[in-house]
Amino acid sequence: MIDAAAARLAGRAQYTPMLSSPFLDDLAGRRVLVKAECLQHTGSFKFRGAWNALSALKPAGVIAFSSGNHAQGVALSARMIGVPAVIIMPSDAPAIKIDNTRALGAEVVLYDRATEDRDEIGDRLAAARGLTLIKPFDMAEVIAGQGTTGLEIAQQAADLGVTSGQVYVPCGGGGLTSGVALALEARAPDFVVHPCEPEGFDDVARSQAAGSIQRNSRMSGSICDAIITPQPGYLTWPIIERLCGAGQVVTEEQALKAMALAHDRLKIVLEPGGAVALAAALFLPGEGPVIAVASGGNVDRAMMARALAL
Amino acid sequence: MIDAAAARLAGRAQYTPMLSSPFLDDLAGRRVLVKAECLQHTGSFKFRGAWNALSALKPAGVIAFSSGNHAQGVALSARMIGVPAVIIMPSDAPAIKIDNTRALGAEVVLYDRATEDRDEIGDRLAAARGLTLIKPFDMAEVIAGQGTTGLEIAQQAADLGVTSGQVYVPCGGGGLTSGVALALEARAPDFVVHPCEPEGFDDVARSQAAGSIQRNSRMSGSICDAIITPQPGYLTWPIIERLCGAGQVVTEEQALKAMALAHDRLKIVLEPGGAVALAAALFLPGEGPVIAVASGGNVDRAMMARALAL
Repeated sequence: MIDAAAARLAGRAQYTPMLSSPFLDDLAGRRVLVKAECLQHTGSFKFRGAWNALSALKPAGVIAFSSGNHAQGVALSARMIGVPAVIIMPSDAPAIKIDNTRALGAEVVLYDRATEDRDEIGDRLAAARGLTLIKPFDMAEVIAGQGTTGLEIAQQAADLGVTSGQVYVPCGGGGLTSGVALALEARAPDFVVHPCEPEGFDDVARSQAAGSIQRNSRMSGSICDAIITPQPGYLTWPIIERLCGAGQVVTEEQALKAMALAHDRLKIVLEPGGAVALAAALFLPGEGPVIAVASGGNVDRAMMARALAL
Repeated sequence: MIDAAAARLAGRAQYTPMLSSPFLDDLAGRRVLVKAECLQHTGSFKFRGAWNALSALKPAGVIAFSSGNHAQGVALSARMIGVPAVIIMPSDAPAIKIDNTRALGAEVVLYDRATEDRDEIGDRLAAARGLTLIKPFDMAEVIAGQGTTGLEIAQQAADLGVTSGQVYVPCGGGGLTSGVALALEARAPDFVVHPCEPEGFDDVARSQAAGSIQRNSRMSGSICDAIITPQPGYLTWPIIERLCGAGQVVTEEQALKAMALAHDRLKIVLEPGGAVALAAALFLPGEGPVIAVASGGNVDRAMMARALAL
């Protein structure tokens, strides 16, 4: 499925570069390679899964629940393919995210978190208008799309002479992490994938330690909002449990410092959630080559200014 | 020579991506493609010319005059090839640039602009230690190296179905502009290359209008310092005169706005001088597809914060 996804994405998605800097190598005390997925269309890896799901399933129209990166990935994919997209967002979502999603051609339906049932609205619209739900991670086509990142990592690392080491991946619901782990199991099995999370929202690391799905105690209050989910997915968790090494947990300050260093040394823009794997590579102990996936760059100017002022 | 340079650079330089955003297309009212050369090693296209010159000439050691991007390109190339590099900088150069060049393994020799003769110091060191001077633009091997950017543009644009239009290139001494123009003359002759400069330092645009080399009246006072030179080069000017369309001139504020939009929409970090071609693509009138070279990203945090605060 990942190979099929790669064929569908060829020429439509960015084949994102593998970046490096001798300054980051010196800082980490190890070779650091950065898969710059923030340069993907819509600013995050989410375009891969959305495009693959839409191309594989050929729906007459799609619906998604998201106020963030998944919404933009679905909206742009639908526009490129030429089918309608409905994105359901809470009415208190940031205006810029609503505007961006609308500008990509999607119809945005707002609901009141306090008084309305998101799923009821979604089911009703999907049934009335024949829309297919595109889930953000617990969907095989989405995981396969994200997994194409892993195929590229295997090829790019081999081209640089790196065939073993650690691969750090920002992890929310686990779509990207599980997809990359599956791709590397097949193509570069001497790499070990490690999910990376912010402190206080480390449901995946705790699930790995416990051997069963654990939940976050809260869903808000993190600057790494793009990768905060209630718990690992039901499809993604068994893959993570079987294939991944120990979860890596970084502080918000480490994520912000990684954003500033990515600015200075790699010339890429990262959002806090997209910087947690780079933060783990730079600031947590480890040996041998490490590949950090920089998964997204949809950060507002104020948050970037905050990182640059550290 | 450009093809030979491409062969030398293969696997050593970044093959930088061609980025785009529907938001930038809407803003410009035309299709905008951005060749993200800020993602090149050392944060600018200068690595290409330096690597090609060192690989082609095989010097026992190199010397360069630069306080900026050329210094870093030469220093890293020399370190990768394993020959000594001496970089001559004014003693009032920013400490961060001196530190970065030293960190890349070069020996930095400082001179006093008021009391010492830079060329005399360079000649003496070159003779005493058998070093080869690597010029920043007026050197065939350097122009050929920068020209590899044009080969990649021709291929990437064709892959996206774009085979004609304007190519905007930030222009200082003209090494990148002339190299790209030569590559496109051979591989994609329906593109027209336009040099882009900041207001008040438009020696190339004025040279084109006059039909002969014109000089800038001053060399300091621009935030676009990376692309400020006294005049077009003696090798580069005839190429520009023969092949290029009219020079495009943007204000400093337009360059800063282009930096902020590149941050928001492309997730890349640009320095003001590296953003002038994108600024011209976004803010100056024009029709049909336009390809803007984003030539460098070596900006300090304070300048980026200034752009983001606009």
